Amino acid sequence: MEKKCFLTRRARKQNFGSNMQQTLSYPSTKIYIEQDLLQKNSLKDLLQLRKRKGVVIADESVKELYGDPLAKLLEVDLFTVPRGEEAKSHETKYLIEQKLFEKGYGRDTLIIALGGGATTDVVGFIASTYLRGVPLVFIPTTLLSMVDASIGGKTAINTSFGKNLLGTFYHPESILIDTQVLASLPEKELRNGLAESLKMGLISDAFLWNLLEKNHQNGKVFLSDPSLIARSIEGKMNIVERDPKELGLRRILNFGHTIAHGLEALSFYEISHGEAVAIGCVTEAFLSKELGYLGEKDFERIFSVYATLPLSLPKNYTREALLKALTHDKKRSLEKLRFVLIDKVGHALPFEGAYCRAVSNEELESTLNLMEITYG
Amino acid sequence: MEKKCFLTRRARKQNFGSNMQQTLSYPSTKIYIEQDLLQKNSLKDLLQLRKRKGVVIADESVKELYGDPLAKLLEVDLFTVPRGEEAKSHETKYLIEQKLFEKGYGRDTLIIALGGGATTDVVGFIASTYLRGVPLVFIPTTLLSMVDASIGGKTAINTSFGKNLLGTFYHPESILIDTQVLASLPEKELRNGLAESLKMGLISDAFLWNLLEKNHQNGKVFLSDPSLIARSIEGKMNIVERDPKELGLRRILNFGHTIAHGLEALSFYEISHGEAVAIGCVTEAFLSKELGYLGEKDFERIFSVYATLPLSLPKNYTREALLKALTHDKKRSLEKLRFVLIDKVGHALPFEGAYCRAVSNEELESTLNLMEITYG
Repeated sequence: MEKKCFLTRRARKQNFGSNMQQTLSYPSTKIYIEQDLLQKNSLKDLLQLRKRKGVVIADESVKELYGDPLAKLLEVDLFTVPRGEEAKSHETKYLIEQKLFEKGYGRDTLIIALGGGATTDVVGFIASTYLRGVPLVFIPTTLLSMVDASIGGKTAINTSFGKNLLGTFYHPESILIDTQVLASLPEKELRNGLAESLKMGLISDAFLWNLLEKNHQNGKVFLSDPSLIARSIEGKMNIVERDPKELGLRRILNFGHTIAHGLEALSFYEISHGEAVAIGCVTEAFLSKELGYLGEKDFERIFSVYATLPLSLPKNYTREALLKALTHDKKRSLEKLRFVLIDKVGHALPFEGAYCRAVSNEELESTLNLMEITYG
Repeated sequence: MEKKCFLTRRARKQNFGSNMQQTLSYPSTKIYIEQDLLQKNSLKDLLQLRKRKGVVIADESVKELYGDPLAKLLEVDLFTVPRGEEAKSHETKYLIEQKLFEKGYGRDTLIIALGGGATTDVVGFIASTYLRGVPLVFIPTTLLSMVDASIGGKTAINTSFGKNLLGTFYHPESILIDTQVLASLPEKELRNGLAESLKMGLISDAFLWNLLEKNHQNGKVFLSDPSLIARSIEGKMNIVERDPKELGLRRILNFGHTIAHGLEALSFYEISHGEAVAIGCVTEAFLSKELGYLGEKDFERIFSVYATLPLSLPKNYTREALLKALTHDKKRSLEKLRFVLIDKVGHALPFEGAYCRAVSNEELESTLNLMEITYG
């Protein structure tokens, strides 16, 4: 464990020179961040595709814009999966596997996932079980998947019983982030990623939070700088490397997510993940204050950042529906709801290694009042 | 790596006292070997089922004899999977997952697989992807699964394209071996396990081979002694711990299996795995001799043990069919067939870390002649 942390710190020192090009190295995954990375002629060498086969599996909505040019550059086949969350099904996994077997792809095949978080979730799952695991590369095409979804090794599909109920822990050998891709994204999409970066700042990186807050005050688009993307990724990777299977510390990544998952479920996923997480973070920060952990001034500072984002509760929101949805969240333990809480910007409370605390419905009341008044 | 090997050696020293009860400890898995273990009242505590849920998933052919009493003793549900190899399908995995979700089993559920190698393969796969992995225990009910199939963390199902094409690497937290179970097995079943133990002796444990050879000369039933089962398991665990993902050393476990997989495939799996492995081992030992690695006397010693086993080639055997089947084995590299080879009893050749060697069809000729004369 010590060794891993050391490697991580060294990688940061070595590579945080330039804003245009970043390389982060972890024992499990190498991360490249660079403008126009997907058009570089050297990509085929970078992915070692002269000595092994490769195949691109892309979200069908990015096939034309990024998929076809990439497959041509790399001289490999391309298969598509349905757009977004729809891809995360038994059917998609089965159909892609059939295609891979039909074409005779063997153990030395590199699977390249191109798309958002849903695509990397399902393609990661496919790669992890195909011939008991083949090499994997992620090329995230949303800010959310760049800073969050593609990081940490969780793969998943959904079932009729809920989201992300089947999957594995499986790490890509590398993640390629082409910041040029961000230029084509609508602002709503960018805010999805921003919500996870802000969360990362709140739970473990005051420096990152300060940078985001400052950019925000200056009216700049959040996260426009590759080094902010790198910093967000680093925060998550450091946590994941220390607790890969979410037995303790990794739970802090769920800050804001207890409320967020409830809002998403009750709205039947009409609300975007980023919006739900943003509402969840400010709400759970308020809960941290109400329970006496977070100071008033710290909360106000947090609130002032979120207050400017265009957030609102789902149209069909009721408190009863939220509480019902919360008790179906699989992250919940048997008896009471549990929340990750913070005591200052950049620090989640350890609670003796549990990294979360049971909260009664009564303790939640004033917090839900605030949330309903602010975003209702 | 060094640390793991040390732990293993220490575990051996500590526990090789009694013949009636053995415990082997590995970083990943604890192995209990004991007569009537499945009837012990303390089993519920051993499996920590007072602080977590559990569920038994059993081969339907052992449901009545072992499954129902075990589920009653542990006070847990029991689900069944089809008998033997038939269980290793998408359908079985899906149906069991549905049942687990319906009953609301969460992340702290212990899945207990009860059956032979096919059962532990599919149930292991299920446990590895259910909520991204839940705790797993194997209770093997065949000698083959005790000494081989349940050891090493490979899980799998079959597809229409071939055997074991989907799966994961996932280790049970413990393996419970009740040697009393062996009393109910027909001799043919016992020989299946014996074939893998003999192989383990040939590739890495001359001491184990000597014991098996001696038992054999004295007319005793092979492997009747729990310490021989333990020794076989240890041999495999030591190799697996040093190369869990089969990147090099672990390939020596495939000794005898190149020929064996060919025979199984051409016979449409009419020949038992153990029979095929036994024919494969003696054939590949002869190949080792023909290629100048294994001495004449060593081969004769090996041959004399296998000669007394009732082995014969599949009825539909032809050399053409075998060679055709061999080129479809997924363990084969692109150009030539590759074989693990030995240079003495207890030692497979490293071949500079590849642990196998390409063999041309011409080089195979005299070896296939011997096999056909001996077992045709």
